[in-house]
Amino acid sequence: MAQHYKLNYFHTRGQGEPIRFLLSYGQVPFEDNRIEKERWPQLKRQIPFGQLPTLEVEGKEAHQVVAICRYLAKQFGLAGRDDIEAAQIDAVVDTINDLRTKLMSIYLAPDLTSKEKLRQQILDETLPYYLSKFDELIMENNGYLVGGKLSWADLFLISYYENFGVIAQRDVFRDYPYIHLLKENVHGIPAIENWIKTRPFSAF
Amino acid sequence: MAQHYKLNYFHTRGQGEPIRFLLSYGQVPFEDNRIEKERWPQLKRQIPFGQLPTLEVEGKEAHQVVAICRYLAKQFGLAGRDDIEAAQIDAVVDTINDLRTKLMSIYLAPDLTSKEKLRQQILDETLPYYLSKFDELIMENNGYLVGGKLSWADLFLISYYENFGVIAQRDVFRDYPYIHLLKENVHGIPAIENWIKTRPFSAF
Repeated sequence: MAQHYKLNYFHTRGQGEPIRFLLSYGQVPFEDNRIEKERWPQLKRQIPFGQLPTLEVEGKEAHQVVAICRYLAKQFGLAGRDDIEAAQIDAVVDTINDLRTKLMSIYLAPDLTSKEKLRQQILDETLPYYLSKFDELIMENNGYLVGGKLSWADLFLISYYENFGVIAQRDVFRDYPYIHLLKENVHGIPAIENWIKTRPFSAF
Repeated sequence: MAQHYKLNYFHTRGQGEPIRFLLSYGQVPFEDNRIEKERWPQLKRQIPFGQLPTLEVEGKEAHQVVAICRYLAKQFGLAGRDDIEAAQIDAVVDTINDLRTKLMSIYLAPDLTSKEKLRQQILDETLPYYLSKFDELIMENNGYLVGGKLSWADLFLISYYENFGVIAQRDVFRDYPYIHLLKENVHGIPAIENWIKTRPFSAF
């Protein structure tokens, strides 16, 4: 495949990492363009809806992380065997995204007291609610989130592993045996293993 | 198509309405199951990830409104002519959903003062930001959000017309000539026109 991919994002894992996981999995070379914070305000105005990540592909600039991941998943055979399975994968991905949004909402709380209260509630209730459901799904689906085989939902979830841990300040997957196993399996895919080993260090 | 569709949602437009728009557009009969609030706490435990809407189709229960809409859009030829166009539609839909989430966040503010402050900020800044971008897209795309022809992104946006108006307490599309025209065109599709004329009344 002669396709040229250029990912535009910040120098963090964040919302770029699911895309980097997919590009690594697909074993296609890609330009991992990490935009310096100082250049961002000026660039923001030129970008559709002013948000990163974007992916330049086929002369177009795709935006929205989930849409970009789905596009790549189709190219690499990770988007389900039919429309129903594609919809099941999509639903799990949107649910992972719901969890991510709730975790990130901690940072949007207007003051320290409400931040700490929200943090406790999300770590004690929201996170276990979602993770136990994901654990069940993986148990029922032969070690994967959907359809008994690897899909982009698996890469999407596992790509957030470190950052969920940063927010919770612990290994959030450790208490969920099936998610933990999925993480080990995804990290064991040679192309992903190589990506993790060689990616530039960032705190988030 | 002998397919049987059953939509499970509350007696509101809300997150059910984009699905009802798509099912109406596809001219397939569907069961519009509206769950009474009193029955919800008991039902919630039986539903994947405890959230409505769900769509029962092909003996499965699909969840997540965007995933359900995309599935239906594929059945009805509204999901783009290739993977790139599908990704463009997906990105616009996720962006509409970002706007919807921001609008709904007004209801989650912890107290009346912060609610009013957030409300003003969202109505004065966030809403015009997104709507002017959508207006531009429609201007550039021959009257539609993507690809110069009707896609499920158009039905998705217009299905929220009344509820965005309820939140803002005015006709939010009126100042955006291209969105306004898209609304008129979508409402003028005979199957959608018929749905709007015959749907059960609800405040939201």
